[in-house]
Amino acid sequence: IPTETEWCIESLIAVFQKYAGKDGYNGSLSKTEFLSFRNTELAAFTKNHKDPGVLDRMKKLDVNSDGQLDVQEFLNLIDSLAVACHDSFLPRSGP
Amino acid sequence: IPTETEWCIESLIAVFQKYAGKDGYNGSLSKTEFLSFRNTELAAFTKNHKDPGVLDRMKKLDVNSDGQLDVQEFLNLIDSLAVACHDSFLPRSGP
Repeated sequence: IPTETEWCIESLIAVFQKYAGKDGYNGSLSKTEFLSFRNTELAAFTKNHKDPGVLDRMKKLDVNSDGQLDVQEFLNLIDSLAVACHDSFLPRSGP
Repeated sequence: IPTETEWCIESLIAVFQKYAGKDGYNGSLSKTEFLSFRNTELAAFTKNHKDPGVLDRMKKLDVNSDGQLDVQEFLNLIDSLAVACHDSFLPRSGP
């Protein structure tokens, strides 16, 4: 029985593989697949401005510039979003 | 309403903050907090050998060698586990 943390790790990979497989599975997200993922799976973050500015920039995420996001580049995006959440959850001191 | 992906990102940060706060919140995991996190939240991965060999090595994860895992070092661990999951989920060809 996985814990919530383990379940989440598996869920993030499952969603990557789901979108990477839309145009035929090749282990990475094309631009079309990335936009489909972002518009569907990150709709609330985008709407609530938790987007730290990386979501529009497939080019920035695609660090090896091959026109695709591989799993490590995808996880870099997830990390950026997680850090933005972390910052927004931190206790604030004073106005 | 968050999507499953968004919920998972928030869950991973919430679990980091929960364990980082056990010895008084300071935004990072001490060795004791890390072991508590690992033994509780990654129990199934450890048992099922999805552990890619990093879980025993707090020192390796602690890239800035301050004796603590900050949020980025924690996310590096999550990424390592996610890549291990990704590899184990990939279709295999032949025996």
